[in-house]
Amino acid sequence: MCNLKFSIDASHGNARAARIVLPHGLVETPAFLPVATKATVKSISPEELEEIGVQVLIANTYHLHLKPGEELVVGHGGLHGFMGWKKPIATDSGGFQAFSLGLGAKLGEGKFEYDSALQSRKNSKKLLKRSAFITGEGIRFKSPYDGKEHLFTPEKSIEIQEKLGADIILALDECSPPSAGYEYTKESMKLTHKWAVQSLKAHTTSQALYGIIQGGLFEDLRKQSAEFISFLDFDGIAIGGSFGKDEMSLSLDWVMPLLPENKPRHLLGVGGVSDIFESVKRGMDTFDCVGPTRMARIGYAYLLPQSGGSQKNKFKFRITNQAFERDLSPIDKNCRCSVCQSFSRAYIYHLFKNKEMLGLRLVSYHNLFFFSSLMQSIRRSILDKKLEKLYSKWLG
Amino acid sequence: MCNLKFSIDASHGNARAARIVLPHGLVETPAFLPVATKATVKSISPEELEEIGVQVLIANTYHLHLKPGEELVVGHGGLHGFMGWKKPIATDSGGFQAFSLGLGAKLGEGKFEYDSALQSRKNSKKLLKRSAFITGEGIRFKSPYDGKEHLFTPEKSIEIQEKLGADIILALDECSPPSAGYEYTKESMKLTHKWAVQSLKAHTTSQALYGIIQGGLFEDLRKQSAEFISFLDFDGIAIGGSFGKDEMSLSLDWVMPLLPENKPRHLLGVGGVSDIFESVKRGMDTFDCVGPTRMARIGYAYLLPQSGGSQKNKFKFRITNQAFERDLSPIDKNCRCSVCQSFSRAYIYHLFKNKEMLGLRLVSYHNLFFFSSLMQSIRRSILDKKLEKLYSKWLG
Repeated sequence: MCNLKFSIDASHGNARAARIVLPHGLVETPAFLPVATKATVKSISPEELEEIGVQVLIANTYHLHLKPGEELVVGHGGLHGFMGWKKPIATDSGGFQAFSLGLGAKLGEGKFEYDSALQSRKNSKKLLKRSAFITGEGIRFKSPYDGKEHLFTPEKSIEIQEKLGADIILALDECSPPSAGYEYTKESMKLTHKWAVQSLKAHTTSQALYGIIQGGLFEDLRKQSAEFISFLDFDGIAIGGSFGKDEMSLSLDWVMPLLPENKPRHLLGVGGVSDIFESVKRGMDTFDCVGPTRMARIGYAYLLPQSGGSQKNKFKFRITNQAFERDLSPIDKNCRCSVCQSFSRAYIYHLFKNKEMLGLRLVSYHNLFFFSSLMQSIRRSILDKKLEKLYSKWLG
Repeated sequence: MCNLKFSIDASHGNARAARIVLPHGLVETPAFLPVATKATVKSISPEELEEIGVQVLIANTYHLHLKPGEELVVGHGGLHGFMGWKKPIATDSGGFQAFSLGLGAKLGEGKFEYDSALQSRKNSKKLLKRSAFITGEGIRFKSPYDGKEHLFTPEKSIEIQEKLGADIILALDECSPPSAGYEYTKESMKLTHKWAVQSLKAHTTSQALYGIIQGGLFEDLRKQSAEFISFLDFDGIAIGGSFGKDEMSLSLDWVMPLLPENKPRHLLGVGGVSDIFESVKRGMDTFDCVGPTRMARIGYAYLLPQSGGSQKNKFKFRITNQAFERDLSPIDKNCRCSVCQSFSRAYIYHLFKNKEMLGLRLVSYHNLFFFSSLMQSIRRSILDKKLEKLYSKWLG
């Protein structure tokens, strides 16, 4: 397929500064995708996202399918018209939410049922068996709105995503949990592969379709999945599966050498500062994470290293801490965002304490700007062959 | 005093298009002041207020005194620095909230105690006696935050407002309720007059100080109050007291001929479309009301007459009504605001139904734009001697 144009501007070690040309515009990488779950990046307007320098968003197929439904979005000429955002958009396949928020939410630990008979991974504390709601056919779930049963097959997910009309769409996958044993993870990966083939076959538009690599924390499975997905005719490669920081780097070390150079690579649901650095170093191009806006809503603001941000405080501080009640300085005195030019920590503290919506809106803006600027610095450092210097400035 | 410059650009009947020059800039009237109760117009940024064409805001002395306290605001160089708004600001005296939200909140009907022995007004359904918490000295109240007792004297209110640093400040008054009898209203008015004199004496800065006319629904009291307040050396005249539409026009008919031509006139807490027209016709210059943002929060959007807005629907409709679930048109197809250029009713319906903050933010923006544009049209119509034509276009 060639539903996007991808070219590499510069590389530095395994890291690369590239560009992805999509129907709604250019994405210069490495790039961060803010999450617009229900077709809105919480509290922030499309105009502000542009100001912030956001190049591409990711929206959620599961949520939009249930409400307002893809037909209404089609009526607006797709997601771009619906949410008033003119630049590129990606949508996920909806598989993860279908299970974790649908029937899965009623199970023991949200997404998985446990069964000690299936134990196979040495250090796993818990044992998993496949939920009856994930079958070869797809993922079955009940709408939390009206209890109606839905089935997401690979074909159905593609059909919905084609109607939503994002620039980048994702194949349906099953995201196996870090605590899953070998057999579970292998079976799950095979299902993801089967669905990948079906998704490609079902795809009819000129939207770019990414396949998803799974395989959990098992080297042979990850490698097998990387080879399988790379072999298929996807426009881009996404890496799925949630894991801790060290495990993420390890998985990337296994997988990256097997990926084609000429396709963009997206890391799903990752957005911590050090995770981004570690992944970029290993050759990832794009990332998405709810972090900037979710953190803002609970009062956490991001902080540059020259302002005290560090691995220890995860580059953020809680602005609702009483220590900032009378602090006249901006969130981050070295930040160039419009919030830091206009408002003090004390004012934002006051807004949060009074439950004034402007508070979380201002911190969301700042946090998104933080990630947008970080990605720009990272890109610049790759172009200038100075990524290592930037890495040590941030991570020591 | 001459802490503002006031000049009349044009008049048409009793209506006038004027300009008020204040330390932070020019206000062209008739003008509407959005309410920034706690130093924020709920959900809207100062930058957006400028875009909307807002010329001046009004903030709340009672709320800001309790949280975060005027000393912190002083630390920011006043309210302008604190909230990041560079144009003119007004503050109210805090008297009304001190009583209605403080100790008064514990009484029968919020602000007043009733006593049938004091009945004196024919049609009054209820009888009032002065609350023990309003004395000649001032208004006593307990902070809802920590239960600490506070006393707002005229001097204290001026002192706080001087620290908050708005361009326009108000003398402490007692707002008598529409159901108050003659004796209550008269006594209350006298107190307001006494406090007006004290406020003037206490005032030390170059902020413009407005006196407040009270007198309820009694012609002789209203006239007496208008003469008394006009006689004093205030920079502007405010009219207080809450009343229904017909009673408001009646009160203005009594009062307006007695007011000096060369001072700006503000009508407190009034902001319905027809109220604004009726008051402008009678010579009012400025208005403030929480309507645009409060209505937005409960899902009401304002509508121009050419789009179906009328006296009957009070120029608004409930966008959360299911009728708009699939409506691809903007809030108001004839509105030029940026929200109506970018978003459909269906999208905003979707945001409200999903409790997405962007929904009420977009409607707040539109509603504020509606009032800003209305005031601009009204001003233009006075300059062009076409106010009557505009009046019939809106009110038939």
